[in-house]
Amino acid sequence: MRAVIQRVTKASVTVGEEQVSSIGRGLCVLLGISVDDTQKDAEYMVRKILNLRLFEDESGRSWSRSVMDGNLEVLCVSQFTLQCILKGNKPDFHAAMPAELAQPFYNSILEDMRSAYKPELVKDGKFGAKMQVHIQNDGPVTVELTSPSSPTDPKQMAKQEKQQQRKEKTRAKGPTESGREKGSQRSRQDPSASSGAEGDVSSEREP
Amino acid sequence: MRAVIQRVTKASVTVGEEQVSSIGRGLCVLLGISVDDTQKDAEYMVRKILNLRLFEDESGRSWSRSVMDGNLEVLCVSQFTLQCILKGNKPDFHAAMPAELAQPFYNSILEDMRSAYKPELVKDGKFGAKMQVHIQNDGPVTVELTSPSSPTDPKQMAKQEKQQQRKEKTRAKGPTESGREKGSQRSRQDPSASSGAEGDVSSEREP
Repeated sequence: MRAVIQRVTKASVTVGEEQVSSIGRGLCVLLGISVDDTQKDAEYMVRKILNLRLFEDESGRSWSRSVMDGNLEVLCVSQFTLQCILKGNKPDFHAAMPAELAQPFYNSILEDMRSAYKPELVKDGKFGAKMQVHIQNDGPVTVELTSPSSPTDPKQMAKQEKQQQRKEKTRAKGPTESGREKGSQRSRQDPSASSGAEGDVSSEREP
Repeated sequence: MRAVIQRVTKASVTVGEEQVSSIGRGLCVLLGISVDDTQKDAEYMVRKILNLRLFEDESGRSWSRSVMDGNLEVLCVSQFTLQCILKGNKPDFHAAMPAELAQPFYNSILEDMRSAYKPELVKDGKFGAKMQVHIQNDGPVTVELTSPSSPTDPKQMAKQEKQQQRKEKTRAKGPTESGREKGSQRSRQDPSASSGAEGDVSSEREP
């Protein structure tokens, strides 16, 4: 699973003339689900999105507050093109989870995020629709995230899995709940690994 | 080097009350330079940004036209936060090239892009300034690119280097010039590899 996370002053989604949703200060998350993603990837993403320290505190110290710390909003939009594999200059999307599977999975990720935070502060686009996503990137500040269990070098994968298992053993609560435990949990979380999905098929899927 | 490429209906950059630049239809590129990047990474990025087929043709066929094919615009903004490494939930930026080195390098990348395309169609932000980047993501369509020579698994790196060398041998012209050769070159370009930069230091760098 891949996410492009943009810190925003505001953001909104329109479909045709209709505004589907909008947020003020917070994060605009474009989320790309791969064919190989599982609940574990979803939990990682929800935890990271909600806990990433991309905001400054009252004294102006950067990188100290999360979207949750600041009671800010999240606009999450499904974005299968993040699972693009280039064949020369042509993108293909067979690494993306097919829409009929991705839609319920994506909805469950949104639900997880709402449960772990505040339902009214987590907004959505319109899955599968042709959207205009209006993003006022603040800084700009943009971060890419790839869930550790995405297909990558087997050796690296094994290492990441072990880290993940170790981490899970040290956690008393579930991962979305532990997202709310700030401070003590932080030092034990391993650095996020970013890696690429690979594949070899071509697709004509529409945005 | 990492880029987040968003297909846009329009995009602009403001610093305070002043609009620094704006484009209509085209690509908004957020570009993150790492400490290890060289001219080779720059050439790869310029070639890919200009030749990526993210637009539809006149008949509505998706993924068939590049920004150059459509005579469209590029808004490129420097974005060191793409070189973020997470320490738990805290981003640190020691993998990003320091600003005093990144600025001339970034400027040279813009110049390369302008030479390879049309200078008046390649716009810029304001390096190092606190900007608001207004992005109307069209679709949405977002693609992440990582230059093949970014630090990654050594085995994979060796493979990529060989592919790159092979590719360079087959090219008569320089890489930015070959960006204009559509069709015949496409099938010979290797798939872009996406991989993560690693590091172990912490930074308080501002956006």
